Amino acid sequence: MNYKDFSVEEIDIVMQQAWHAFHIYRKFSLTQRAAFMKAIAIELENCGDTLIHTAMQETNLPEARLRGERARTIFQLNSYAEACEKGIWLAASIDTGIPDKTPPKPDIRKMLVPLGPVVVFGASNFPFAYSTAGGDTACAFAAGCPVIVKAHPAHVETSEMVAKAILVAAEKCQMPKGIFTHVHGANFEVGKALVIHPYTKAVGFTGSYSGGKQLFDWGNQRKEPIPVFAEMGSINPVFLLPEKLKSSANDIAVLYAGSITLGVGQFCTNPGLIIGIDGDALQTFIHDLGKAIQKTEPALMLHSGIVSAYKKNKGHALLQEDVHLVAESETMVEENQGLPTIATASGQTFLNNPVLQQEVFGPYSIVIRCKDMPEMIEVAKSLEGQLSSTFMATENDITENDELVEAVKNICGRFILNNVPTGVEVCLSMQHGGPFPASTDSRFGSVGADGIKRFARPIAFQNWSNNLLPDELKNENTLGIWRTVNNELTKEAL
Amino acid sequence: MNYKDFSVEEIDIVMQQAWHAFHIYRKFSLTQRAAFMKAIAIELENCGDTLIHTAMQETNLPEARLRGERARTIFQLNSYAEACEKGIWLAASIDTGIPDKTPPKPDIRKMLVPLGPVVVFGASNFPFAYSTAGGDTACAFAAGCPVIVKAHPAHVETSEMVAKAILVAAEKCQMPKGIFTHVHGANFEVGKALVIHPYTKAVGFTGSYSGGKQLFDWGNQRKEPIPVFAEMGSINPVFLLPEKLKSSANDIAVLYAGSITLGVGQFCTNPGLIIGIDGDALQTFIHDLGKAIQKTEPALMLHSGIVSAYKKNKGHALLQEDVHLVAESETMVEENQGLPTIATASGQTFLNNPVLQQEVFGPYSIVIRCKDMPEMIEVAKSLEGQLSSTFMATENDITENDELVEAVKNICGRFILNNVPTGVEVCLSMQHGGPFPASTDSRFGSVGADGIKRFARPIAFQNWSNNLLPDELKNENTLGIWRTVNNELTKEAL
Repeated sequence: MNYKDFSVEEIDIVMQQAWHAFHIYRKFSLTQRAAFMKAIAIELENCGDTLIHTAMQETNLPEARLRGERARTIFQLNSYAEACEKGIWLAASIDTGIPDKTPPKPDIRKMLVPLGPVVVFGASNFPFAYSTAGGDTACAFAAGCPVIVKAHPAHVETSEMVAKAILVAAEKCQMPKGIFTHVHGANFEVGKALVIHPYTKAVGFTGSYSGGKQLFDWGNQRKEPIPVFAEMGSINPVFLLPEKLKSSANDIAVLYAGSITLGVGQFCTNPGLIIGIDGDALQTFIHDLGKAIQKTEPALMLHSGIVSAYKKNKGHALLQEDVHLVAESETMVEENQGLPTIATASGQTFLNNPVLQQEVFGPYSIVIRCKDMPEMIEVAKSLEGQLSSTFMATENDITENDELVEAVKNICGRFILNNVPTGVEVCLSMQHGGPFPASTDSRFGSVGADGIKRFARPIAFQNWSNNLLPDELKNENTLGIWRTVNNELTKEAL
Repeated sequence: MNYKDFSVEEIDIVMQQAWHAFHIYRKFSLTQRAAFMKAIAIELENCGDTLIHTAMQETNLPEARLRGERARTIFQLNSYAEACEKGIWLAASIDTGIPDKTPPKPDIRKMLVPLGPVVVFGASNFPFAYSTAGGDTACAFAAGCPVIVKAHPAHVETSEMVAKAILVAAEKCQMPKGIFTHVHGANFEVGKALVIHPYTKAVGFTGSYSGGKQLFDWGNQRKEPIPVFAEMGSINPVFLLPEKLKSSANDIAVLYAGSITLGVGQFCTNPGLIIGIDGDALQTFIHDLGKAIQKTEPALMLHSGIVSAYKKNKGHALLQEDVHLVAESETMVEENQGLPTIATASGQTFLNNPVLQQEVFGPYSIVIRCKDMPEMIEVAKSLEGQLSSTFMATENDITENDELVEAVKNICGRFILNNVPTGVEVCLSMQHGGPFPASTDSRFGSVGADGIKRFARPIAFQNWSNNLLPDELKNENTLGIWRTVNNELTKEAL
């Protein structure tokens, strides 16, 4: 089906409704919000095979991957619902008054309250987990915010089906009209109108640097600037440390051939940069990685736009001076498939050419051959912000190279040891986000229940009598949540 | 003494040193950071009367106020140091691995790490508590960040003395060179050079809207945008609800005459807007407030620039159509003094004229006479973001006017009941900050130890062995800090 772009007038109506819904929904209890989120999870399951088949057609992603991604999306909704109800994220805090102090210390109690309507832009590479009912939507609902999703043009039917599931859940849970709206817009003007609307109070985005940075700029140029949480991908550097590389060059090569080509390289955590110190071990690694890549079959990418961008960006990288092709898949590439490819360059070439820091979205990685550890440290220090960085290292490698460890720690949101960056576990301790340009605000992440905090702000109640306070801050603590009372964490009543 | 503005080249050297210091200081333990902060508190005390007298000369603030403010600054340093060591702000979180899950769940552990060098712009109205060794500086040191303070041109000597105290403490605690630098700059180019320097990773500011918004824009227009936390003041609306007003018009008038003129009205929490429903009780209030203001003596403001701005902005407000002068102090105003003044206007006049929402920094307030409760709600909904809002109300007033309560809650960072907004208690539950334009990021505040979080970001460690992890995340929990382990808050070891 063809969906018409929403007009500016239609968007204004949508935002008016969302604003109205906000004033009702933000008073709903944590339990009511959690019930709504869990109901969405059930409706997603109820969409059955039809949803999976629709997504398969629109995204070229294989069935098993999509079933797994839906299960993950359901898990996100349910686990963030539990976190919502548990209320640790509210950061409730109580300082009791001291009336006989000079001047008297008033009773002050603080908790997080929702920001307002949140606009969510879905990702093409995650039609479920980072799209219509994905992490941003779940976090916004938990925080107490209505959501407006702009459907990703690459999977509108999938998005429509998920949107309907959300609306069914909303009706079953008697949510206010406007709690969720699904907006179509292939033209960027729709996105712009959503971001600059005065009733929009925050934005969630997963996608390219150019897209995310544009939303960020629009958000900041408003009369009332708003936070724009854009996760814009990265090249996820992997450092091969000497002792580890010497003992495991082949194992690492096989492991990384898998990670680089997983999902046809269409993950924002894809390892696009591998850095080692030149020598026999690194040459073995490059050779073995090349061999493994040659044997990896090309597969369909998400859509023709992604394929052309992959070809263009990879071609551009390979054309740079002193960049050499190591290997490509030996299987002939068919239409809309991404050809697994490995390149290599010296440390000096990398340091002198910022093009090599640009993400090539797809099954591609470049191996950087440093002449020694000081050059590897120099490479680490030259890197922009990253979602993840990985060390393949023995314990000696770590303890003997503190400067490298610290330099790498300083540029990433997630620091992995002897593992691959692909595969982002959904749990509270996950950090998916990193220093700019990996994301626009390194102080928050888009995976795990801490993402709820993106859409809330603290409010302090001063001198309110107990019965007029929100339940979360009343002496009795009937909700049984954790609170900091006079600087001590406790679940006790006052 | 005359201090020369720093050149762009000098600022580059300062930032290089701060960047170098960052890599050393961020590895310092929480205890080491806390010891440094406590040492600064001791050195501030050691500055003795000389510091107070210097500040009196530069700011025209009275001795008792300045002694109180220094004591508050010392309390901030000591209490944030305790919070730093306690480590709740680190939001440490552990998800233990499940190797036999499909796919295996890796061990993931998360905590906050410092952002990097922080540039602090002090406030003219708080030469100690929001300046050189003020809240922003204390929070940045606690987070693990070096600090560069740009001295406020209105109190350079005071700032110099405090800076020297910090440097003495730094030497005693063996802090790295560059941990703190004091920069002079009367010209805005100095501030700009500091904000746009690539090694600056965050900015703290307290002052005017025009100043704060400019820093915010510079911060966001960088190649790598950085967070700029600007607290830009507000008009702190006070709502007089019918039942309370009827019973206590005179008491409220006396209380607020004191709050409006406290410190010659030079607080960002000064109540610049009072809203009631017209009738006998409000007329009594206006009359009594006017009487009290007439009897209040004018006093010296901070400097001549503040006095001229006060006269200009107040004059502009009083010239607006249908705005009437209620009363001024009867005492003749002398040079550099601020004349206490009360004006009034109708609800419709306020709703039609955005000029009346502009802050008049000084001992001035305008009383808005609404024709009924719906108009009062309309006024509340028309307000921009505020640091604080206040209700003077009985319990009935609150429970019967839910729409007003919710509208007001939605625009402020602190919601006060039957109290005055002036006087910001330093404690964890305080929120000093609010929706834009009260501050640039409503999700954070600049008073209380939660302000530390402004200068830190989460990092997740995936699959690291216990002995290689930071102490905060090791199984043993030798620091005894609170951590969320598999979604449960605990101080226990694993």
